[in-house]
Amino acid sequence: MSNTFEEKTIATTQIFNGKIVQLQVDDVTLPDGNTSKREIIKHPGAVAIIAMTDNDELLMVEQYRKPLNKSIIEIPAGKLEPGEEPAVTAIRELEEETGYTTEKIDYVTSFYTTPGFSNELLYLYFTKELILLDEKKQLDEDEFVVVHTISLSEAERLLQTQAIHDVKTAYALLYVKEQINKRG
Amino acid sequence: MSNTFEEKTIATTQIFNGKIVQLQVDDVTLPDGNTSKREIIKHPGAVAIIAMTDNDELLMVEQYRKPLNKSIIEIPAGKLEPGEEPAVTAIRELEEETGYTTEKIDYVTSFYTTPGFSNELLYLYFTKELILLDEKKQLDEDEFVVVHTISLSEAERLLQTQAIHDVKTAYALLYVKEQINKRG
Repeated sequence: MSNTFEEKTIATTQIFNGKIVQLQVDDVTLPDGNTSKREIIKHPGAVAIIAMTDNDELLMVEQYRKPLNKSIIEIPAGKLEPGEEPAVTAIRELEEETGYTTEKIDYVTSFYTTPGFSNELLYLYFTKELILLDEKKQLDEDEFVVVHTISLSEAERLLQTQAIHDVKTAYALLYVKEQINKRG
Repeated sequence: MSNTFEEKTIATTQIFNGKIVQLQVDDVTLPDGNTSKREIIKHPGAVAIIAMTDNDELLMVEQYRKPLNKSIIEIPAGKLEPGEEPAVTAIRELEEETGYTTEKIDYVTSFYTTPGFSNELLYLYFTKELILLDEKKQLDEDEFVVVHTISLSEAERLLQTQAIHDVKTAYALLYVKEQINKRG
């Protein structure tokens, strides 16, 4: 991809350096020579994993999302640790959140979740070879989840009621439908 | 959806109030009685529109995304204005970014883009009844885009090369494929 309409940075002002996000405001030169400000959330990146059982059901986790002030049901996911391979993070999150592991994951795709204001890049994986762990792994100390095993038709109903309401899970459901259709 | 594991807010600290995003840090009580901090980006919400021509091609816009420091190709989108109906915003963004309008749009779905750290909710629409405007509408003064008309197979190639690399456009491509399959 070319850098059509590139915006050159004149100055960067650091506003906030948190546990998860950093916020900066960049002064930029626009293609017409004028200047503007860009509010940018720096994020370490994230992974999510579509974990399918032998019965074509999906492992999902219900958790409270403070930014939404509600609980939603999502595919297992988490943020990248510095220097960690996304595939390794994906297996770690699967283990911590669901109590299952896998020795075979496939890379599906990666995408920016909100290119207008953040650089968060999410790597999506798929596994259909789930192994139940003998002992459950520890979640982060501020993380509380309930695991659900959900059929595709039930997941579509939960999407209608907005119990499933985030884009990575909505994308995962379309992806799984497409895979099942291909399989025939 | 229930509020399983609800996190009660003890205190909210406002960090930043920008043109697009607001940042706050909430002190919360966790389900186990401990406390934690949640970094929350408040966003006004957004719309995107899948705009399909009579030849099953998609109108897309190429624009520089400062958070990514590169240009990518996306379906037309924009943020909600206060009090504006999402469907009205979708048509306005279609007009401003592509020079086309429509009198018939269908609601596809809505989803949170990054529920872990932001409340951005994106409303997705679809139209297949495009009308070329006599006169192009004005973009925002800091917005520069190139319009492309892209076939589904070309879009999939651009997804491979990551010229298309954001989740709403990736979702839109899966959605359109599913619609075309259904149509047979």
